Amino acid sequence: MLDANRTEPRRLESYLAGRWQAGQGDGQVMVDAATGDPVARVDATGLDMQAALDHGRNVGGPALRKMRIHERALMMKQIGLALMEQKEELYALSTLTGATRSDGWVDIDGGIGTLLTYASKGRRELPNGHVIPDGNPEMLSKDGSFIGQHILTPLEGVAIHINAFNFPVWGMLEKLAPTWLAGMPAIVKPASQTSYVTELCVRKILELGILPEGALQLICGSTGDLLDRVTCQDVVTFTGSAATARKLRNTPAIIEHSVRFTAEADSLNACILGPDVTPDSPEFDLFIKEVHREMTVKAGQKCTAIRRAIVPADRVEAVTEALRARFAKTTIGHPGTEGTRMGPLASADQVAEVSSAIEALAREARIVIEQCEVPTDGAFCAPCVLVCDDPLNAVAPHEVEAFGPVCTLMPYDTPEQAVAIANKGAGSLVASVFTDDADAARTLGLGIAKLHGRVLFGNRGSAKTSTGHGSPLPQMIHGGPGRAGGGQELGGMRAVEHFMQRTALQGTPDLLTAVVGKWMPGATRHETDVHPFRKSLAELEIGDTIVTAPRQVTLEDIEHFANFTGDTFYAHMDEDAAKRNPFFEGRVAHGYLIVSFAAGMFVQPDEGPVLANYGVDNLRFMTPVNAGDTLQVQLTAKQITPRETEEYGEVRWDCTVTRDGGEVVAQYDVLTLVSKTQREL
Amino acid sequence: MLDANRTEPRRLESYLAGRWQAGQGDGQVMVDAATGDPVARVDATGLDMQAALDHGRNVGGPALRKMRIHERALMMKQIGLALMEQKEELYALSTLTGATRSDGWVDIDGGIGTLLTYASKGRRELPNGHVIPDGNPEMLSKDGSFIGQHILTPLEGVAIHINAFNFPVWGMLEKLAPTWLAGMPAIVKPASQTSYVTELCVRKILELGILPEGALQLICGSTGDLLDRVTCQDVVTFTGSAATARKLRNTPAIIEHSVRFTAEADSLNACILGPDVTPDSPEFDLFIKEVHREMTVKAGQKCTAIRRAIVPADRVEAVTEALRARFAKTTIGHPGTEGTRMGPLASADQVAEVSSAIEALAREARIVIEQCEVPTDGAFCAPCVLVCDDPLNAVAPHEVEAFGPVCTLMPYDTPEQAVAIANKGAGSLVASVFTDDADAARTLGLGIAKLHGRVLFGNRGSAKTSTGHGSPLPQMIHGGPGRAGGGQELGGMRAVEHFMQRTALQGTPDLLTAVVGKWMPGATRHETDVHPFRKSLAELEIGDTIVTAPRQVTLEDIEHFANFTGDTFYAHMDEDAAKRNPFFEGRVAHGYLIVSFAAGMFVQPDEGPVLANYGVDNLRFMTPVNAGDTLQVQLTAKQITPRETEEYGEVRWDCTVTRDGGEVVAQYDVLTLVSKTQREL
Repeated sequence: MLDANRTEPRRLESYLAGRWQAGQGDGQVMVDAATGDPVARVDATGLDMQAALDHGRNVGGPALRKMRIHERALMMKQIGLALMEQKEELYALSTLTGATRSDGWVDIDGGIGTLLTYASKGRRELPNGHVIPDGNPEMLSKDGSFIGQHILTPLEGVAIHINAFNFPVWGMLEKLAPTWLAGMPAIVKPASQTSYVTELCVRKILELGILPEGALQLICGSTGDLLDRVTCQDVVTFTGSAATARKLRNTPAIIEHSVRFTAEADSLNACILGPDVTPDSPEFDLFIKEVHREMTVKAGQKCTAIRRAIVPADRVEAVTEALRARFAKTTIGHPGTEGTRMGPLASADQVAEVSSAIEALAREARIVIEQCEVPTDGAFCAPCVLVCDDPLNAVAPHEVEAFGPVCTLMPYDTPEQAVAIANKGAGSLVASVFTDDADAARTLGLGIAKLHGRVLFGNRGSAKTSTGHGSPLPQMIHGGPGRAGGGQELGGMRAVEHFMQRTALQGTPDLLTAVVGKWMPGATRHETDVHPFRKSLAELEIGDTIVTAPRQVTLEDIEHFANFTGDTFYAHMDEDAAKRNPFFEGRVAHGYLIVSFAAGMFVQPDEGPVLANYGVDNLRFMTPVNAGDTLQVQLTAKQITPRETEEYGEVRWDCTVTRDGGEVVAQYDVLTLVSKTQREL
Repeated sequence: MLDANRTEPRRLESYLAGRWQAGQGDGQVMVDAATGDPVARVDATGLDMQAALDHGRNVGGPALRKMRIHERALMMKQIGLALMEQKEELYALSTLTGATRSDGWVDIDGGIGTLLTYASKGRRELPNGHVIPDGNPEMLSKDGSFIGQHILTPLEGVAIHINAFNFPVWGMLEKLAPTWLAGMPAIVKPASQTSYVTELCVRKILELGILPEGALQLICGSTGDLLDRVTCQDVVTFTGSAATARKLRNTPAIIEHSVRFTAEADSLNACILGPDVTPDSPEFDLFIKEVHREMTVKAGQKCTAIRRAIVPADRVEAVTEALRARFAKTTIGHPGTEGTRMGPLASADQVAEVSSAIEALAREARIVIEQCEVPTDGAFCAPCVLVCDDPLNAVAPHEVEAFGPVCTLMPYDTPEQAVAIANKGAGSLVASVFTDDADAARTLGLGIAKLHGRVLFGNRGSAKTSTGHGSPLPQMIHGGPGRAGGGQELGGMRAVEHFMQRTALQGTPDLLTAVVGKWMPGATRHETDVHPFRKSLAELEIGDTIVTAPRQVTLEDIEHFANFTGDTFYAHMDEDAAKRNPFFEGRVAHGYLIVSFAAGMFVQPDEGPVLANYGVDNLRFMTPVNAGDTLQVQLTAKQITPRETEEYGEVRWDCTVTRDGGEVVAQYDVLTLVSKTQREL
């Protein structure tokens, strides 16, 4: 398609070791998917990969790790908001890859949205420090003098992200978000085909000047000897073909140093029409829309696209007709033209690959829809629907992926058959099930769960709000077993762990408190002269404690509380009934009475830095409290989380209520908001 | 060492596909470590590995998955208790491997203890069903009609556990515990050297008749073509040398099908003497004891043993002298003899390997202690302490592992140097730090965390209770990055996940409730004719709901509650002070008042199946409640957890308190114990 008379395209540079650098070879010329015009020359020959690794390890990593987790999250928010303002330039360039406006939305708005979601979830769900406590403390000795606590700390290498051509922006940002939040620098290597879009996005990010130098590097072209130089503190992620995933997984340095390697490979994702769904149910239309959408968005070039539509045998014809009607109205054309529903594939090579895949499928399935009205210029590909009549014994329809607008219908008779057919994909990123029947959802959903990273249920109840089969969301994991590569990305804070080392700490509560920065059960409680409620966030220290005066609970208190609140549950009011209860020896105080009294005991009432009690966590009543018992409370500052953008922060207090000077009767965390400084009153 | 006149040793059989089977080859003869007498012939030539996989997949797996999680946990408890009763036979056999009584304790009591810990933790921390909800529901749409929930379901293949020779019992049981709890069958392949101990343990387990057939298979000898037949539903774990780990990781079927593979390889674990510790501190003695213990337990044949002792430069001599004094009193001899502190290595081959490793070390370090009084018969090995004077530039002491009673001392000047030296191990299972100084603990602990799976702090506070440097505990993760293999085992319920598939479910709250078996926010609340507190566990259904009558909160209520409880915090009592608070527009009701009133509203007071409120989780006050607001409560059965061994179970209720018919003011889980059946009163 290259015309010798056309002008030499722009030579893309790589951003490595702090500067933009051009490769020393001729590399490859990438062309406009719709017109065949040259767009960019991509080459990274001779670039110094060791220098890039060193730069990330010695410059980017330390700078990121110096920031608190919430600072990193805020940095990501700023970058995301700034990109959002400049996104039109990305959209314009994205058209050259064959992407329509709505294809670009998935990539560009989807990618920036993922960055923003991590920025927000990170501040909501992670502490604002440098160490993430993981799970609860474990009591490793009877007397509590030796305990355990897991922590997560950032790996001190570089995350190398090798991405696929279909999402040049999302593919980068969905991996950068958890990487940066964890505190790791990254080297991004986009697929050459669409690397000019990634390059523009990287330029925009770097120009903002928000990101510390070394936190983001870019390779446009081949990675050279980069992967031969990784150590166990580096991470390698890959999105692309299963064949390349296998090759990369075999890299000697990755094997030798047990380097974390995750792969997300294309898979033969299924969509099941539930046995309950007839052509007149709303779920039938939702199913048809979804299959059509997954075939046409990005012209089917999505690793999550529906390749296999599994339908009740007696509804194959109705499904075929409904799809045929939709395709008759589907405009295929230049992605930049108004009204275009589907653009071209990314390149002529892709068209050839899809054609040969269709040929392989057609040996075990028959073509029932083939839309021929596609432009003859550019990398356009005709949508194709096949029917495989014997899906339980077929091979190619479960193995050969046509990475384009191609889908095979497969009939089933029983839900068990539908499960067996879906699972013949041998591991997929996602499957969807269209049903409005709870039993069908359970049978099909649990039947296929073990082989799928994600299962989406579509029905009338989420018709307007479902994000759809094909969209990985930042909150939910993305990745599947087996053919899908065995990797796991996203899934909220789960992805942040991929870039951190989990370490089990063991020792005394005091030493672990010092290391983790969070008060551990059994650690010293420092009784301070000043009530801790009088201290601002700046003055408060982990371990600061108030030990209250004792208070006796009387039978009168219990009856009074019961009558005041209306909680006259028999265990509080009826001595005989309480005794018949297997846990009590007589009337017991209400749990809510205990925590209410406890608050009355530990609160310092005057106006001051404590602003509000916003909640309680993990409240457990350990032993019944009877009339006559004397309670006492120890309240200790356990974890302090300053809010970067507010004048206050959160303080989590350990609250332990004991009876008669010893036995713990209630244990919980009290959550308060506390002013960063003393308020001027 | 084999004497032709000796009698032919017992031929060990493998237990595969439901029967004990002998290999068809000559295999290898294993000998008594101390005497060289033949113990067992080990061979698995010609055994049908595909039949074993099929048996696990088609017989063992379905049987385990049919059981609820708590049923599997109870099964493990029964097996553990029964093994504990018969453990003396295991101890007797274990002596032949060179293990002293206390070596055997780590292996046998340690292994059974791990099984019991999982049995107990599993029932405490996991639901009693077939699906484990993972994390919280995610709101994926603004109106809550489309949500997400991750679940874990058992993989439907076989877990293949390839174990090391040093812990024939623990090595098997620590892997079986999470495997079975997850619902997966296992094939165990112990190292041939000590496989006769594992074989006895397997025989005992099978003879109990507690385990479903197919849940446990055993290969004594080579695995043949087993690993060429794995799929993505199988799991392969390996404990042993880094070289073998690399080889196994490269198995074509493992790469091809993205099979989960974890390795736990020997590493050069370090022990650091803190800068604060002088020869007269208690921590000095603890350090000496620990180094000596790690060199002598199992004669240093532990993947966690201390290979590098990192000490302040000016204390190298004192450490050497203290160790010398200890070794002078260390009795080395037959492991079955009373008073023996250290037995032989597992085999003559091991002795040769250790000797050659010492030779390599001695090129960069000088031998300062070498005890020569060891028996000359059997596989005995003299303890050896070296000093490496330039540890930051040395190579062998950080790379060559002498798998025996060998340790190299390394001097440091600053804590940063100590960190750098420890990290030169390039990834270890564990390091310990002996210090009584919080700052030193933090600097050293966080400095080495990224390269260590576990960090233990030793000081006077845990002198009597510490479980020690070398002991992996079921609660804490075991495994380290880089040289240690990059795997992760144990760590409580974290290990169970290795044998399950995580799947992200998306759909309406009602459909996800049906699939997960747990009420999802936004799902239908079924108001029943009978108050749900009148229903037994057998009668109660997920979603059963009581919607209470409304109740107004008055200023009188707030003042009354304040005076009664003593909680006169300014936000409740002082209109002006409350207004100055950034969150309130005036005096607000106490959070504890809201939950107390809520209980008064939702409780059905009569004696009945509800036995107790044992706690509250995730209580959040979403909006302030002011005098005049009218509250209403919706209480919905969210999760039901019957206790296998009790007459009751746990019910988790979703409790949502709204104001004036709409806005949510408080949201939490109420935890109750409910009788399985209606009580006879």
